[in-house]
Amino acid sequence: MAGSTYGTLFKITTWGESHGAAVGVVIDGCPAGLPLSGEDIQLYLDRRRPGQSRFTTARQEADRAEILSGVFEGKTAGTPISVMVRNQDQRSRDYGKIKDCYRPGHADYTFDAKYGFRDYRGGGRSSGRETIGRVAAGAVAAKLLERLGIKLTAYTRSIGNITIPEEEYDLSAVTENSLYMPNNSYAEKASVFLEECMKNKDSSGGVIECRITGIPAGIGEPVFDKLDACLSKGIMSIGAVKGVEIGDGFLSADALGSCSNDAFYSSDGRISKRANHSGGTLGGMSDGSPVIIRAAVKPTPSIAREQETVTSDGENTVITVTGRHDPVIVPRAVVVVESMAALTLADLLMANMSSRMEYLERFYI
Amino acid sequence: MAGSTYGTLFKITTWGESHGAAVGVVIDGCPAGLPLSGEDIQLYLDRRRPGQSRFTTARQEADRAEILSGVFEGKTAGTPISVMVRNQDQRSRDYGKIKDCYRPGHADYTFDAKYGFRDYRGGGRSSGRETIGRVAAGAVAAKLLERLGIKLTAYTRSIGNITIPEEEYDLSAVTENSLYMPNNSYAEKASVFLEECMKNKDSSGGVIECRITGIPAGIGEPVFDKLDACLSKGIMSIGAVKGVEIGDGFLSADALGSCSNDAFYSSDGRISKRANHSGGTLGGMSDGSPVIIRAAVKPTPSIAREQETVTSDGENTVITVTGRHDPVIVPRAVVVVESMAALTLADLLMANMSSRMEYLERFYI
Amino acid sequence: MAGSTYGTLFKITTWGESHGAAVGVVIDGCPAGLPLSGEDIQLYLDRRRPGQSRFTTARQEADRAEILSGVFEGKTAGTPISVMVRNQDQRSRDYGKIKDCYRPGHADYTFDAKYGFRDYRGGGRSSGRETIGRVAAGAVAAKLLERLGIKLTAYTRSIGNITIPEEEYDLSAVTENSLYMPNNSYAEKASVFLEECMKNKDSSGGVIECRITGIPAGIGEPVFDKLDACLSKGIMSIGAVKGVEIGDGFLSADALGSCSNDAFYSSDGRISKRANHSGGTLGGMSDGSPVIIRAAVKPTPSIAREQETVTSDGENTVITVTGRHDPVIVPRAVVVVESMAALTLADLLMANMSSRMEYLERFYI
Amino acid sequence: MAGSTYGTLFKITTWGESHGAAVGVVIDGCPAGLPLSGEDIQLYLDRRRPGQSRFTTARQEADRAEILSGVFEGKTAGTPISVMVRNQDQRSRDYGKIKDCYRPGHADYTFDAKYGFRDYRGGGRSSGRETIGRVAAGAVAAKLLERLGIKLTAYTRSIGNITIPEEEYDLSAVTENSLYMPNNSYAEKASVFLEECMKNKDSSGGVIECRITGIPAGIGEPVFDKLDACLSKGIMSIGAVKGVEIGDGFLSADALGSCSNDAFYSSDGRISKRANHSGGTLGGMSDGSPVIIRAAVKPTPSIAREQETVTSDGENTVITVTGRHDPVIVPRAVVVVESMAALTLADLLMANMSSRMEYLERFYI
Repeated sequence: MAGSTYGTLFKITTWGESHGAAVGVVIDGCPAGLPLSGEDIQLYLDRRRPGQSRFTTARQEADRAEILSGVFEGKTAGTPISVMVRNQDQRSRDYGKIKDCYRPGHADYTFDAKYGFRDYRGGGRSSGRETIGRVAAGAVAAKLLERLGIKLTAYTRSIGNITIPEEEYDLSAVTENSLYMPNNSYAEKASVFLEECMKNKDSSGGVIECRITGIPAGIGEPVFDKLDACLSKGIMSIGAVKGVEIGDGFLSADALGSCSNDAFYSSDGRISKRANHSGGTLGGMSDGSPVIIRAAVKPTPSIAREQETVTSDGENTVITVTGRHDPVIVPRAVVVVESMAALTLADLLMANMSSRMEYLERFYI
Repeated sequence: MAGSTYGTLFKITTWGESHGAAVGVVIDGCPAGLPLSGEDIQLYLDRRRPGQSRFTTARQEADRAEILSGVFEGKTAGTPISVMVRNQDQRSRDYGKIKDCYRPGHADYTFDAKYGFRDYRGGGRSSGRETIGRVAAGAVAAKLLERLGIKLTAYTRSIGNITIPEEEYDLSAVTENSLYMPNNSYAEKASVFLEECMKNKDSSGGVIECRITGIPAGIGEPVFDKLDACLSKGIMSIGAVKGVEIGDGFLSADALGSCSNDAFYSSDGRISKRANHSGGTLGGMSDGSPVIIRAAVKPTPSIAREQETVTSDGENTVITVTGRHDPVIVPRAVVVVESMAALTLADLLMANMSSRMEYLERFYI
Repeated sequence: MAGSTYGTLFKITTWGESHGAAVGVVIDGCPAGLPLSGEDIQLYLDRRRPGQSRFTTARQEADRAEILSGVFEGKTAGTPISVMVRNQDQRSRDYGKIKDCYRPGHADYTFDAKYGFRDYRGGGRSSGRETIGRVAAGAVAAKLLERLGIKLTAYTRSIGNITIPEEEYDLSAVTENSLYMPNNSYAEKASVFLEECMKNKDSSGGVIECRITGIPAGIGEPVFDKLDACLSKGIMSIGAVKGVEIGDGFLSADALGSCSNDAFYSSDGRISKRANHSGGTLGGMSDGSPVIIRAAVKPTPSIAREQETVTSDGENTVITVTGRHDPVIVPRAVVVVESMAALTLADLLMANMSSRMEYLERFYI
Repeated sequence: MAGSTYGTLFKITTWGESHGAAVGVVIDGCPAGLPLSGEDIQLYLDRRRPGQSRFTTARQEADRAEILSGVFEGKTAGTPISVMVRNQDQRSRDYGKIKDCYRPGHADYTFDAKYGFRDYRGGGRSSGRETIGRVAAGAVAAKLLERLGIKLTAYTRSIGNITIPEEEYDLSAVTENSLYMPNNSYAEKASVFLEECMKNKDSSGGVIECRITGIPAGIGEPVFDKLDACLSKGIMSIGAVKGVEIGDGFLSADALGSCSNDAFYSSDGRISKRANHSGGTLGGMSDGSPVIIRAAVKPTPSIAREQETVTSDGENTVITVTGRHDPVIVPRAVVVVESMAALTLADLLMANMSSRMEYLERFYI
């Protein structure tokens, strides 16, 4: 089945393998008249680019985005926006055991099981480069949201067991350290931990959090296309994400109703909540509070240790994954989480415009 | 937007409010020739029925399912299967403050924000009765899966902070206690805790786990309709679910790659994994191991305590939610989680049938 | 695959076989706040009811619509609207040869070919009763459109070779004759022809035309979900329709560009066209002129003559279809064409609301 | 709304404006293992290329297709196939009145009405170049179908009032004349007629027919995604198509049931029909006979005569469309009709694979 399309009204289709000619995305359904330049997209792509710190691969990938359609005289035209990034490094080389072996923790085995064979060069479609299309589209969605007063901020909440308590968040620090953590001193601790990981030929996971402010109440389409359900799908579809939670999330399983309910109050004609245990949604629709969503990211599966595995012919063997690999994928995935959240929200905001008959009457009469 | 449809090939559409005439579901795309009776559906519905233990509401709801179409001479006909359950209790009564107030933790406020007004009788479409359609359809999906050798088992893993360690699981106990816990002694502890909650006019959350065995490798459609992404959406769309994780889930954020990767090995021509940290998926496709997915459920928001809130006119007030309410929603939600997992899987199994050209050739030539 | 759902934002799912318990439809995505009663739907259903003239079957089917959900205090609630019509006549009787033979011109053979067996009682899902769900939903869509100033008028343009020239149209006559023709004298001629058909144990086809006025310019979503493309699909999906055309349609194949182009002119600040060869669309979007669409309907396949056919076991035989059958299906299909047009248009009107960034800004800021 | 995606399982998304950087398509859901080369696609693109006869524009467009992803070692990999064709001629030039005027018969006015502005260079997204993506994808679908024994043949049935009677068809002639007509002598007559048109600064329409052989019975998903309904949508979505019919089409409106029904007979264990008035479908599913579908194409709207129109400011004016334009669009649209038919059929063939429980059991057990 065609699984590379996401969204209904604001719809994206990504394509491309890591060592093919290029990767890209088609963004369809973006409203006409949004100012958009290649630079808008480049800024987002740069946030996921490798080679930014000592914990990201040193490969040099320029990742220059080219807008091929859908923008006319600096504004979106209402037609599909096609964005392409050429792959720099397509040389044939020796893929050695990767070609015929299944790397533990990777999608090698399942790709073969599904399709009968796979593009073994650097992971093909299951490579992290697949996210370039998501991020390029996310940049467009985020720009759309920004004009509506909606702002997304994603960051690294924890790396391994180093978790920043909410009361020590300093969102201004996020862009000051290469781990995108909202606290420079925790980022320092995490750096030390990651160097230890590298020394041990090991890798680490972490948690990414995304806060979205400025969402009006009522966004989300019960009962299946709820805001939290759609966000979960979008974020869980990112490689390496193994869990998603909103608001108190798994903590709410261990809470009492008297502590979990957010009391409403009214002030200056505006309805607000005393707390935000719900993480900004009630009944799957935004409640006017910030939406807080978190993603659990597993450790990079590529580690320089010898691991037990099998060949595609079903023979037992061992493999040592060589090459340069990030000891942690979390910092580079921050912008991917933000992008998936932006795409989801743009789609649901558009869907919400026809939720009341009075809206149609105001629009058409 | 139309948010009441779920699935692409095996597609369901649910409808109905808690105090309207009926609730139901249309199941479209179910293959022809599956033996199906009202009893198959009734068995599933009975698992979510109230009045089964002292922790579920004593309301008497017969919830008799009527199959209105799509089944001919005891087998599905390939046409839409319409299932309806009449609501028993539609008397007009005094809804008191609920009509004009927003209950904390409920969808009252967001429904008003989105649609301009709401069916205030018992929660309307945001009531737990909405899940009847999901479960009736889930019964059909589970029956389909069973014939393919795929089995789903969902149960209560924890209530409040009473969590059953995996090594103490006894799946045969699940149907022996009214909390659907796979360990009767933990169920006893949880019962004591819930009685305490009721005494304190409070409520509790918990964690539901679903294990699916017998799934062949390769199910799931990268990069957006991955098995784990689709399961997350389906389960997160259930009211009160605040988090979803697969395999090690949030624990994997705190793990090392060397512990997180599942080694492959071959034995008797079959490829297996030494462990199942991944929870049965790699790259968003099933890897042949059991799929393990967990849902965090928040405490029942209806508690008999006075809570701060506002009226729909924006005036501050207090509310005490009266009536009989479950102190915990978890046991009744177990079959809902299982149903959403079954529906998701049935859909993706059908999608997978056209993943290779050789499959089409074998089918059509 | 699930083929019983139509539309994206205004989405319907129909269900039911002719001799099952009931037929019905779930209408999802209808905006909240539209006044709606059972009577609104009944008026539409009555237009497709048999027993209205001597050319429609004398079966007595009350076809009483019951609204089961989605309407609260006389207005749509934004939730799915479930409408059901119980089948009156479910007695088991002798279906004779129909059970094991393939009636020429019917879907008996193809249903068996696809699903392996079929509900042979009265055509099952391929019966004309399937359209009850379409018409019930069409009534809701037409009510929505009416509030936006959009009006649909469908009628019988021709029966057999008796075609009413456009200059002799009298739309007020449509409800005055049982053939729904916009000219009573042509209706009289058609009646004589149909009586001749009946005498000869034969049947006739015809052409249905639908005019839609009041559509603002710009409705339709290039390049695949164009207004004319979507209308074509909806109308061609009606049983017995074999052709669809818009504006000059097949005549335009035989026209010169100099006659086919509609000149624009401006008057009182309003842009109009001198003619309407295009039938109200340009580039697949409405151009502000009336949309004119036509459907070719084949003769009723059930005729009382002996016809050559085969049994389901592949043996050659003959069949004479007994029972009361309309000698022409066209008049009863008029409201079905109108309904499919209304559903298509409601969906595309909602989609159009997010076509410009300025619309989103006006809505959300 | 996103209208540039077509299909459910075999899904394509086209993009690109006539004078932007490039045009292209992403083909998602193509089964893995189909041999595919750039040459396969090029052969199809060459059939729609201008400059092939004296009736097509003399513009030189190389239209070289580049496959950017989804093919590995000569075979489709199950991942999205991205195909791009660079636009050769992007020079800025004087678009004169076209920029501010609405050309009669074109989409200029409706694009402005919908999106607020438009890419006026050569028609932008409403240009015939938009079909390059359809044809590139159609080549892939046709290759898939060919391996299943399904063959599509499209050709020009009529130009203006020069129609080839079915009994004079010579399908081998289709590639022998530049009008793609299945009879060289009629093609000669049509050429004379078209030269007359050019002399008169006028243009002509025509009818395209597509025959599809080798389709097994049962393809199509009632009641909305019927084979004929889906084909109609796909073909009607092509610019300039104003009507679609299947089998006898509009002629069946004027036929008697006794002539319109196709008798079944059995021979050598195979069920066939004595005639094919139905055009290969019954109840919206293929009946095993050839599918015959026709499209009415309007005359090219660009003619060198002065035409009445308005400016975007709403002032009355006249326009003479200059530049080289085909006096007839039909021959170049032949391959586009064939492509849309191939895409539709590939999608429905894949959907059909899960129509019976026995198919799932055979596949998975």
